[in-house]
Amino acid sequence: MRTKKMGNQTIKFKNPPIILSTASIVGAKEGEGPLAKYFDKIIEDDLYGEESWEKAESKLVEDAVRLAVTRGELQLADIEYMLGGDLLNQLIATSFAASKLQIPFFGLYGACSTMTESLSLASIIIDGEFANKVIATTSSHFATAERQFRFPLEHGNQRAPTAQWTVTGAGAVLLSSTGEGPVITHITTGKVIDFGVVDANNMGAAMAPAAADTIATHLKDTGFKPNDYDLIITGDLGKYGKEIAIDLLRKEGHKVKNVFSDCGNEIFDHEKQDTHAGGSGCGCSAVVFCGYLIDQLKNKKLNKILLVSTGALFSPTSSQQGGSIPSIAHAVTIENVSIK
Amino acid sequence: MRTKKMGNQTIKFKNPPIILSTASIVGAKEGEGPLAKYFDKIIEDDLYGEESWEKAESKLVEDAVRLAVTRGELQLADIEYMLGGDLLNQLIATSFAASKLQIPFFGLYGACSTMTESLSLASIIIDGEFANKVIATTSSHFATAERQFRFPLEHGNQRAPTAQWTVTGAGAVLLSSTGEGPVITHITTGKVIDFGVVDANNMGAAMAPAAADTIATHLKDTGFKPNDYDLIITGDLGKYGKEIAIDLLRKEGHKVKNVFSDCGNEIFDHEKQDTHAGGSGCGCSAVVFCGYLIDQLKNKKLNKILLVSTGALFSPTSSQQGGSIPSIAHAVTIENVSIK
Repeated sequence: MRTKKMGNQTIKFKNPPIILSTASIVGAKEGEGPLAKYFDKIIEDDLYGEESWEKAESKLVEDAVRLAVTRGELQLADIEYMLGGDLLNQLIATSFAASKLQIPFFGLYGACSTMTESLSLASIIIDGEFANKVIATTSSHFATAERQFRFPLEHGNQRAPTAQWTVTGAGAVLLSSTGEGPVITHITTGKVIDFGVVDANNMGAAMAPAAADTIATHLKDTGFKPNDYDLIITGDLGKYGKEIAIDLLRKEGHKVKNVFSDCGNEIFDHEKQDTHAGGSGCGCSAVVFCGYLIDQLKNKKLNKILLVSTGALFSPTSSQQGGSIPSIAHAVTIENVSIK
Repeated sequence: MRTKKMGNQTIKFKNPPIILSTASIVGAKEGEGPLAKYFDKIIEDDLYGEESWEKAESKLVEDAVRLAVTRGELQLADIEYMLGGDLLNQLIATSFAASKLQIPFFGLYGACSTMTESLSLASIIIDGEFANKVIATTSSHFATAERQFRFPLEHGNQRAPTAQWTVTGAGAVLLSSTGEGPVITHITTGKVIDFGVVDANNMGAAMAPAAADTIATHLKDTGFKPNDYDLIITGDLGKYGKEIAIDLLRKEGHKVKNVFSDCGNEIFDHEKQDTHAGGSGCGCSAVVFCGYLIDQLKNKKLNKILLVSTGALFSPTSSQQGGSIPSIAHAVTIENVSIK
């Protein structure tokens, strides 16, 4: 094998794909949170000038991709593949955006793990020398997710303390075989883990075992210690799920607490913004990575991070049928290393 | 580049991935159709011993994967990645199966194009030397699709003449870097094409332009003529969509009619089985390929085919909002060639 397979689930890239540029566009609430200054664009109206929230979410994807490509000093026609997805049934946000963008398209669904799923497959395409320029993207929208997964917003239902707040936002990452920027050196692809959690208002608890499993597998496969990382950051476990993941990892012998965070915990000020257990949605880890984390990497405040987007693979139908919430997490190592 | 990129959308593999084995499991109606003898298993009850149709569809996926792996004389633990998806919201059929199978998992959504989407990405993973054994799978189920996309079955609504019948079935393809079997030599990845069709009862018409675009691009990128193929077979255009695709290709200067077919046209006897415009669903091209076409390849009745699964990237929500039906098609060349 020319590319180093480490253990059963991890790939170490021979020619780590370079993050040439990113773009992050968020909603008004995210724009009032602690990471506001890192986002490229904050929209004032959740409809973003469109007729429906779903169309607004699609426009977020389209604009994030266009912005990342422009920042990479490229044209849309230079991009060989687009990989991405969102939370909406049949991925309409991403598919309708792909229709406008006219880039050969692979649709992905990993629930809120989609950002690292798309980064993983995009990296495989580039390191495998199948393309030089690939865009990875994902999005979510509070209003589209609420009415699809929970209740119509007009219903005004009360939220459980463990409930999370779906982030309105889209992120896009332009990966390249050449150029300058932080690089993706390793990916660890998750298995679907089902601990039998059935409470759709406590997704953090459902996803924590998947996050812990993927992180433990990553550490085992690579031989890295938690402190080899400046930051291990999960997607959207929220404050309860994060604690569960740290506990599960401690039981496996991994002390991660001092380098561990969660994008859902970072994006809102939960006390002031009434977001309960924290942010969630595909867009959560997407915009935290494309906005805040990439800034920290470029400014050398962080030099090696493990991004672990986490997805709950259930649907309202499976929940109504009494099904549990199987979950998945994919890990991606992003590093500042000397450029080829 | 070590792997030959042909044109903008086509890859020619250096070490074409080998189809080590396939499995196809179908419902009772498919088991009464003209391809019955080619399917590995015909289930008698659409519930397949489960409590809901959704759980039955998930079991179809699980069993198809298990059967393909057993036939390849391997264990589940030997399979490095599973790629697949289905039509259900949030891919619950495939995700719940992946939870049982415990193979590192990438969830895909390309609507009914998912079989060739999964074959494309699985081939990239193998030819790129990231893995030696990968499973690609997809499914659909008449009863789960009807109630999700159209009406509850109990409603007994009348079907439009252009309506298609969602296939109940799952297919799984075990790809390998070594061994014997037909190989995947080329893939052409589609762009999302939107001709403005808004009639969700005429998906064939919506998807035909995407099929024609991908086939024309494939012929241009590779330099192949239609007659270089023994068969060019689309996923589920049905009888109306098939004629539109042939017409669109003729206008582009490609005479494909004498080598052209459609999986949705082949799987049912439309007159006797009252399936109107033909079969559809992710499972349609999956089981026609994994059952009938692979048999024809192995028996040298066909030696080179282009499988072009076709997907309509809409949702009930986008249709209710007056949206059109953007579509996509991915093409995969499967050939009998001398084995490495």
